Amino acid sequence: MHSLRLRRLGIDTHEEAVVYMRQDCHICRSEGFSSHARIQISSCGQSIIATLNQITTDLLRPHEASLSESAWRRLGVTEGEEIHLAHAPQLDSMGHVRAKIHGLDLPEPALYGIVRDIVAGRYADVHLAAFVAICGGQNLSQREILALTRAMVAAGSRLTWNRQPIADKHCVGGLPGNRTTPIVVAIAAACGLTIPKTSSRAITSPAGTADTMETLAPVTLDMLAMRRVVEREGGCIVWGGAADLSPADDILVRVERALDLDSEGQLVASVLSKKIAAGATHLLLDVPVGPTAKVRSTEDAQRLAALLSDVGSATGLELGIVLSDGVQPVGRGIGPALEAHDVLAVLRNEPGAPQDLRLKSSMLAGRLLELTGASPLNAGADAAAQLIADGAALRKFEAICDAQGGMRVPPRAAHTYPVLSDRRGRLAAINNRLLARIAKLAGAPAAKAAGVELHVRVGDAVEAGQPLYTIHAEAPGELAYALDYVKVHAEVMQLETPP
Amino acid sequence: MHSLRLRRLGIDTHEEAVVYMRQDCHICRSEGFSSHARIQISSCGQSIIATLNQITTDLLRPHEASLSESAWRRLGVTEGEEIHLAHAPQLDSMGHVRAKIHGLDLPEPALYGIVRDIVAGRYADVHLAAFVAICGGQNLSQREILALTRAMVAAGSRLTWNRQPIADKHCVGGLPGNRTTPIVVAIAAACGLTIPKTSSRAITSPAGTADTMETLAPVTLDMLAMRRVVEREGGCIVWGGAADLSPADDILVRVERALDLDSEGQLVASVLSKKIAAGATHLLLDVPVGPTAKVRSTEDAQRLAALLSDVGSATGLELGIVLSDGVQPVGRGIGPALEAHDVLAVLRNEPGAPQDLRLKSSMLAGRLLELTGASPLNAGADAAAQLIADGAALRKFEAICDAQGGMRVPPRAAHTYPVLSDRRGRLAAINNRLLARIAKLAGAPAAKAAGVELHVRVGDAVEAGQPLYTIHAEAPGELAYALDYVKVHAEVMQLETPP
Repeated sequence: MHSLRLRRLGIDTHEEAVVYMRQDCHICRSEGFSSHARIQISSCGQSIIATLNQITTDLLRPHEASLSESAWRRLGVTEGEEIHLAHAPQLDSMGHVRAKIHGLDLPEPALYGIVRDIVAGRYADVHLAAFVAICGGQNLSQREILALTRAMVAAGSRLTWNRQPIADKHCVGGLPGNRTTPIVVAIAAACGLTIPKTSSRAITSPAGTADTMETLAPVTLDMLAMRRVVEREGGCIVWGGAADLSPADDILVRVERALDLDSEGQLVASVLSKKIAAGATHLLLDVPVGPTAKVRSTEDAQRLAALLSDVGSATGLELGIVLSDGVQPVGRGIGPALEAHDVLAVLRNEPGAPQDLRLKSSMLAGRLLELTGASPLNAGADAAAQLIADGAALRKFEAICDAQGGMRVPPRAAHTYPVLSDRRGRLAAINNRLLARIAKLAGAPAAKAAGVELHVRVGDAVEAGQPLYTIHAEAPGELAYALDYVKVHAEVMQLETPP
Repeated sequence: MHSLRLRRLGIDTHEEAVVYMRQDCHICRSEGFSSHARIQISSCGQSIIATLNQITTDLLRPHEASLSESAWRRLGVTEGEEIHLAHAPQLDSMGHVRAKIHGLDLPEPALYGIVRDIVAGRYADVHLAAFVAICGGQNLSQREILALTRAMVAAGSRLTWNRQPIADKHCVGGLPGNRTTPIVVAIAAACGLTIPKTSSRAITSPAGTADTMETLAPVTLDMLAMRRVVEREGGCIVWGGAADLSPADDILVRVERALDLDSEGQLVASVLSKKIAAGATHLLLDVPVGPTAKVRSTEDAQRLAALLSDVGSATGLELGIVLSDGVQPVGRGIGPALEAHDVLAVLRNEPGAPQDLRLKSSMLAGRLLELTGASPLNAGADAAAQLIADGAALRKFEAICDAQGGMRVPPRAAHTYPVLSDRRGRLAAINNRLLARIAKLAGAPAAKAAGVELHVRVGDAVEAGQPLYTIHAEAPGELAYALDYVKVHAEVMQLETPP
């Protein structure tokens, strides 16, 4: 067996596993490895597949090798350890991907094989891109989507609960702010439902639910700790990253993002597999529709809803789908802490609390209560609103935060800058994508207090010199950087001049 | 403008352009670059797009950056130079790839845009893989293949000749040995045809025509030198790599290989675009058909031939297509010098010259003579055989070698090992793919004299202890390595035991 000694170079290739070896080392020569070969690397019983990058200088010594940061983590090695190297075994499941490219349908066992290999890290990014492309758009049949969903569930861990129903909610995303989850979970749990909510961190957005929640309580809980919270309080809002629920999803989503590719089948399998793996029996889906949201037209939304509904019922999941207004952000804050302040304002019934967030959260929570039978039809939203109004939702939320490790006060940014309107008019449109970009330039989500605070909504009359929104940043450099962007992107907010 | 100073780390990522920057450098922080971001790098008026890998250690100092070897070459920089970095501009043509994924046809301007961006290096490997996958199999219409061919021609240089016809020949490949090109070119030129042949080096095979020819004469000629050879001798056999003819082809072929994906449309566009760019007017195509060749069935070959023929005539190219026997290698040698010895033996009318190579070369050359009108129909093969028999082809070949810089004697390997049959039988089949692998393990094509020399052909009776083939290697280590492989792959040659 060929072996080399590990030296850490500290190269972060994102998720692609890369092994670095000298071009003139004995292994490259005797095995005939050339750059971009796929190599199996083993250490202490663990093994991964990595792509070879060859070193042509003295960066490594002849008996040394290195791994990209993600490969290093996945293999769980330490500096100086020996690794063993061999040709990667044939990637048989790529034969199914090629068959799909040749126009054949993917039977369930083929999708199981593909997903298993993806989760085991046997697919290089080019293989993943080929799979994602050929399954993109509307290229998967409903039968294939169902099989993909099941394969994704099977390839990860699965939570089981000793009660029924298990409620869950999910938003297909693309709308800044829209932080209804903490409020919906608090209402549902206050009403006696079980709702073990796992959320993601932001990948391309200024804040994920986990980022916002982290400004209010710890969210990195292992499965055991999460279970304790849910058993005590009925609900939780934790980060799902440690949970290994449908791990293929994260991998596929990453490549879809790199290709900027929408894939209906992938979206359906992604959402449903995560929820089934989390043990959900009843799922409420929020699908915001708007010209700068993820789903842009009512027809797209309806087709997606039908698909979700059909595949969902085939897996035994009870599904409620809400097509919501995705024309502008929900709430005032965009960014982890700013959104947390909105959530608290609603739960605390503060007079200035954002009404749109309060209404949308009650509506969604109400639909979830109806879906699970916790409320009669058409009475859910009122019941939910009542639980906010009488403080029950706030008390439940505080109890959940306590159970997750203690409630925190979300931070406030040290540097703010109000962006003023340069003229009089009526706000005709808000570009969600540009607004998200400004919040990110200001430092969100890494800088928790950073982001954008909106002062106007579509339809509002605006005077010259009136603040449209305020940029929040933790460092003056980030504030300046966001402002540079604002200067050349006045189209973030479109004002109609009154006649 | 942000800039960093270049330090060479010498990391060979194959063709993917990668830029290495410290995660904590001022540019990554202020631009919000994270690993796998696409970055535009400029230096002295040149610019390329590269994928970011972030360095988390002191491998680079804060004001330093590095580039992968291919990016370094493409940008033409030297150590210590300053490079400027910015977000890569939006990759608009990926919108067309997404449209194709969503089921739309690709109009000609879309394919021009895609190919232009590919040649300019704006596609990362994941983008290339998505394009190759969605256009793979039979997913391109004939109209799209024609448009792709034209786009590939337009994206590179184009040779023009002040005479007609310009003959060319091409083999779609997949069969070891099969080194007919030098013989066909010699015959055609001896007959007065103009045949400016550019060939490739081996990518996954044990020898490309350019590798074989290089053991006989220099092949790295620039366009001007190539033109001088053709004007003096009517023909040449040079390496096409320096020529910039259909440069998109090399990039797409590389990704297809990584995915191990056959693509009919891509194959047609690839072959035809190279030939049209080289100025060919008449093209003879050799399509070997056999269970372990590239094209495996007669139906596949016929469909491919029809497609080549239709697209070829739409571009104004006169095409002749020969479906040939791809059941076993042609000639005895597999590897650059071994194949060159076969070529010389045929041209010199040596008594032991491989008859199959002589016959196939005469047949192909004859068809080319007929196609260009240099010979009446059904008389080409005899005319070609006559030019070999009377020494005219040899004299022309020697003259071409002289014109290319001087004829050489192909080397012989220092280490050989005959693989003997362990029993009596009749040779039923030869696995072309395994045989190619053995030749490569023995060192081909880098070690010019290395490879495999066949002693038997399908149908031959074999005695126990009789040599089946001899492995040739330049170093004992490589010989041993090939032998290790032979030991566990007895299925290279299938013997039928006589009843």
